[in-house]
Amino acid sequence: MSAHGPLHETRPLANAIRFLAIDAIVRAGEGHQGVPLGMAEIATALFTQHMKFNPADPQWPDRDRFVLSNGHGSMLLYALLHLTGYAQFGIDQIKSFREMGSHCEGHPELDTASGIEVTTGPLGQGIANAFGMAVAEAYLNAKFGEGIVNHYTYAFVGDGCLQEGVGQEMISLAGHLQLGKLILCWDDNRITDDGSTSLSISEDVSARFRVAGWHVIEVDGHDIDAISAALAEAKCDPRPSMLACRTVIARGLARLQGQRGGHSGKLFAADADAARKQLGWPHAPFEMPHDALDAWRAAGRRSEREYLNWHERLVALPDEERAEFERIQAGRLPDGWQRVLEDYKKQTIERGEAQAGIMISAEINDLLAQLPERMVGCADLEAPTSHKRSLLAFTAEDRSGAYVHCGVREHLMGAMANGMAAHGGVIPLAVTYLAFSDYERPAMRMAALMGLPVKFVFSHDSIGVGKNGPTHQPVEILASLRAMPNMRVFRPADAVEAAECWALAYEHRRGPSTMVFARQNLPLVRNRYSMDNLCARGGYVLAEAEGGKRLVTLLATGSEVALAVEARERLQQEGIPAAVVSLPCWELFDEQDPTYRQAVLGIDTVRIGVEAAVRFGWDRYLGERGGFVGMSGFGASGPAEALYERFGITPGHIAAEAKRRL
Amino acid sequence: MSAHGPLHETRPLANAIRFLAIDAIVRAGEGHQGVPLGMAEIATALFTQHMKFNPADPQWPDRDRFVLSNGHGSMLLYALLHLTGYAQFGIDQIKSFREMGSHCEGHPELDTASGIEVTTGPLGQGIANAFGMAVAEAYLNAKFGEGIVNHYTYAFVGDGCLQEGVGQEMISLAGHLQLGKLILCWDDNRITDDGSTSLSISEDVSARFRVAGWHVIEVDGHDIDAISAALAEAKCDPRPSMLACRTVIARGLARLQGQRGGHSGKLFAADADAARKQLGWPHAPFEMPHDALDAWRAAGRRSEREYLNWHERLVALPDEERAEFERIQAGRLPDGWQRVLEDYKKQTIERGEAQAGIMISAEINDLLAQLPERMVGCADLEAPTSHKRSLLAFTAEDRSGAYVHCGVREHLMGAMANGMAAHGGVIPLAVTYLAFSDYERPAMRMAALMGLPVKFVFSHDSIGVGKNGPTHQPVEILASLRAMPNMRVFRPADAVEAAECWALAYEHRRGPSTMVFARQNLPLVRNRYSMDNLCARGGYVLAEAEGGKRLVTLLATGSEVALAVEARERLQQEGIPAAVVSLPCWELFDEQDPTYRQAVLGIDTVRIGVEAAVRFGWDRYLGERGGFVGMSGFGASGPAEALYERFGITPGHIAAEAKRRL
Repeated sequence: MSAHGPLHETRPLANAIRFLAIDAIVRAGEGHQGVPLGMAEIATALFTQHMKFNPADPQWPDRDRFVLSNGHGSMLLYALLHLTGYAQFGIDQIKSFREMGSHCEGHPELDTASGIEVTTGPLGQGIANAFGMAVAEAYLNAKFGEGIVNHYTYAFVGDGCLQEGVGQEMISLAGHLQLGKLILCWDDNRITDDGSTSLSISEDVSARFRVAGWHVIEVDGHDIDAISAALAEAKCDPRPSMLACRTVIARGLARLQGQRGGHSGKLFAADADAARKQLGWPHAPFEMPHDALDAWRAAGRRSEREYLNWHERLVALPDEERAEFERIQAGRLPDGWQRVLEDYKKQTIERGEAQAGIMISAEINDLLAQLPERMVGCADLEAPTSHKRSLLAFTAEDRSGAYVHCGVREHLMGAMANGMAAHGGVIPLAVTYLAFSDYERPAMRMAALMGLPVKFVFSHDSIGVGKNGPTHQPVEILASLRAMPNMRVFRPADAVEAAECWALAYEHRRGPSTMVFARQNLPLVRNRYSMDNLCARGGYVLAEAEGGKRLVTLLATGSEVALAVEARERLQQEGIPAAVVSLPCWELFDEQDPTYRQAVLGIDTVRIGVEAAVRFGWDRYLGERGGFVGMSGFGASGPAEALYERFGITPGHIAAEAKRRL
Repeated sequence: MSAHGPLHETRPLANAIRFLAIDAIVRAGEGHQGVPLGMAEIATALFTQHMKFNPADPQWPDRDRFVLSNGHGSMLLYALLHLTGYAQFGIDQIKSFREMGSHCEGHPELDTASGIEVTTGPLGQGIANAFGMAVAEAYLNAKFGEGIVNHYTYAFVGDGCLQEGVGQEMISLAGHLQLGKLILCWDDNRITDDGSTSLSISEDVSARFRVAGWHVIEVDGHDIDAISAALAEAKCDPRPSMLACRTVIARGLARLQGQRGGHSGKLFAADADAARKQLGWPHAPFEMPHDALDAWRAAGRRSEREYLNWHERLVALPDEERAEFERIQAGRLPDGWQRVLEDYKKQTIERGEAQAGIMISAEINDLLAQLPERMVGCADLEAPTSHKRSLLAFTAEDRSGAYVHCGVREHLMGAMANGMAAHGGVIPLAVTYLAFSDYERPAMRMAALMGLPVKFVFSHDSIGVGKNGPTHQPVEILASLRAMPNMRVFRPADAVEAAECWALAYEHRRGPSTMVFARQNLPLVRNRYSMDNLCARGGYVLAEAEGGKRLVTLLATGSEVALAVEARERLQQEGIPAAVVSLPCWELFDEQDPTYRQAVLGIDTVRIGVEAAVRFGWDRYLGERGGFVGMSGFGASGPAEALYERFGITPGHIAAEAKRRL
């Protein structure tokens, strides 16, 4: 292929995309025309000849998934949804692109009911989500069979997504797992925001994919027939496929095409006029010729027969299997699923033993292995976090395994989990050390923003890590996660709270949960059985003050609750009525009514926050007389007990701090 | 080379490393033997035949840099520092490995005075730091010439570092920039914490490096002569080099070598005894035979001649050039460097114009282009963040440029900046959008932990981003960065504060600074010139209450200060004496004495925090009667002004909230 490839006469269907994008961007006054104009033919080939989808039922479980990983090119997606007939994307929505309240937001935002599979924009996330979708598909395919789950996942991707580390992690692991139904279309336009890609990359991107075990096809990105043939080839190949589509950015805009400004340089009406002349498009802005629209609408109905056949196959399933499929698709947990957790609470109280925090979580999750929709990813820490247990590995050879060895690729793991959750039918867990949550934080933010029910599980949650030292000891990370909107952060104090918090996390379907566990032993602090899930209110009085009006309230989470209990005993022995409040989930506590919160926090008491982490965020609970016992900087390397002593997080110090403030 | 390669008789020098590691790990009760035992020959070849270093002067500016990117193998580094004669690593330190207060911490922690170039442990960071060191070297080499700056950067790296996205970003950009003096030694032991690397990777790692333009040599990692020859070849090659060293993990421990448990499985005295027999090492624990120690100490003196020659060349430099070199090595800014900032403050007050926040920062930094030690990295956002201006690009062909096009690789950019700062002689800036700070957060944490004076610069700091929508609108990120110990977060309100904050950031040498700027225009709120840097105390009264005792204090940062000023006017007009406090840097404000802080915050006043971000962290300033005007969740897609209205961040709402609480 020559440097620019032969540019075939573009077709009306592709130009329909182009002019919707141009008109919408001119009207909005800003946008990113590079993608919709450069990838119009690729999109046309995919959506008119390959994609399995049904605009009348956007959430058809077995639809092909489409991810616009280069989400700044959002008008490409909106144009496609409009043209193929998604009800939520009428022409008025297109006209309101980037206005407040429009469905056509600056970047696509997850709304599967409208045809948007996933929120994209931060680069690299989308292709990693697509990877997760392909994993979910392969897993469900193995479970329910070809007739019920058997679809492709397509992602459009720009240079930026492939430069990002998370994109590289994806390339490596998708090749390893041989996800043959994952198909990327790379918009190889050789332009980034800074200018030529040669400013920052020299490598042969296709060769990089091939090294990882991908099937790569190089194709002229403006030749619809060639792209379609390449897609047909990709669908048959057992390897994941990457179509390297040589394109001209912003093609059709004479002033900007192939240029740096093609990416997102401001468009004017004159540009639109010039494009109309150049491409022979005599129609007024936002006006679509009937033949083009009819052809697009026909494309939107392409999969009707497949859709009906699929429903026939679903109906023909044995009742139990069908009910199970529908249950997990709906994200409903089976009746009585919590019984094992209740039993666990009772047994653990009977046993009365201290256990390593993270092993408690592993044990609880092993009890839930009965839930077929659970999948667990772990970033090369199987043994120290132990959430594999009875699960088989998901491999290139065996798709029935529910445990994904992610390698040391935390960021991909988080974004994969998002893609699984967005796909549906799977409840993903992603497990690593809390110190490394920063590596997957961009994905965690996306989970919170999208409201995806991902469970981010962390071990080694404080200086309790001990000798591995400050690189491995979180101190600021609880605060940084609690600061994130729509993220619930659970830090249970013992095995009973852990069972309760896990019950809450599994029941929570509107957003992600972060589950934080100590590496060290957690003694039992909840040693009386209660039917109620006390953690459900986020915070509660674990031990009330005795012998008089409460003067002191000790507020603690996780491994520090046991220290607070000891401190309370000292205070009580000295005649100071003191209560311990456990706060396993701030977000839930903050949702309670003020009367409950006040009663728990204790009006007019001295409140001492206790957590082996920084104070940041705690002041909301402490009041003006309050104090805090915790960390004020990074940790250190040494035995855990010695570190707790050194940083003064001890019952003695807690009691002293309370007395000092009385 | 066969699967395992021929294993030559190991030599006493390598075994000296092995037994120091074994004895220290057995004594500590934990550690990671895999690396020191598997890489003992590689380390021996490098340190006895190639590394340019001087244990008597660990901070010799032209020393070769050595980074143990697989930092969990810290005993390898401590053994090398002990054997080659670094004063700070006597045998007592080795014996106290992982004990509280030992220099031999769980993971290596930056202490260039002792021979530790950089803190490592979180995987991938070290090789990305090494990349930054190699960039700094090339830049300073171009500036000061071969005679003064001309050294290699070596990094040891395991499979984990190469799986991490940041490692992949490094491979790509180092190849692009053809950093010929960067040499990696890959510990190709085919084992990770989970077991065989085949659980999570199939690709040919050497081929991946070759695709990126690296020079790769495959070598038996236990053959000292072969490794030494490969290093010699690597040093001559103009490309960055990767030695793929085939090794056996934990070699020498019969029970664990080549196994999963080799990584960090618990060692017992019996293992040490067995190794002594197997390797013919009759010496008691921590006892070093004289000949081996003498040979190692001689290796430590290998570069003495080079060291003296280098000093002669330094002395022979023209006075001015030498002074300049010594100045930037010491991290001292030139006398009077702040004058341009003072002039800028005056001029900007005279002009009186509103300007885009990030462009103010760009303008200020352009004024500082006089400082040759400034280097700027940017993640493919040159135009919208504009910190290039008069700088040339640093490229494969021209090392004199101070601007590094990092591509869409934020994580690498941050870790590169850390490596530059750790190298010395360079003050690095890393520029991107605030929403993407999460991508480089693991590197930012390392900068804070190491106390490196990196400037992390961010644009697009709030919903003020507007139509690009919530993916691009930070709301929780200020809080998450303020939660980080040893990180100063500056959010200036206008051009005058920006100049003051930049002055503080450049003067701050003991830790990183985060510089946060709005995309939108910042009107001038500091319109009277003051010689004093008012931002130096972190917060100050911008406008005092008038007409009576202050009843209300409005606390704001950045773009919201102007809104607070307007709200104050409304309150004053209604006869409510109100003050505005600007809080550009919480960390500096919190360091002030309580009297000052109380006076600024206003005793017994209603305090309203105002920030287009979440409340998390603000309560410390607000008191029990306080309120907050800001965000309570993620943003939305729409024009910036409309978003401020929608989320109620307006002067009217601020004033109303104050009155409600009076």
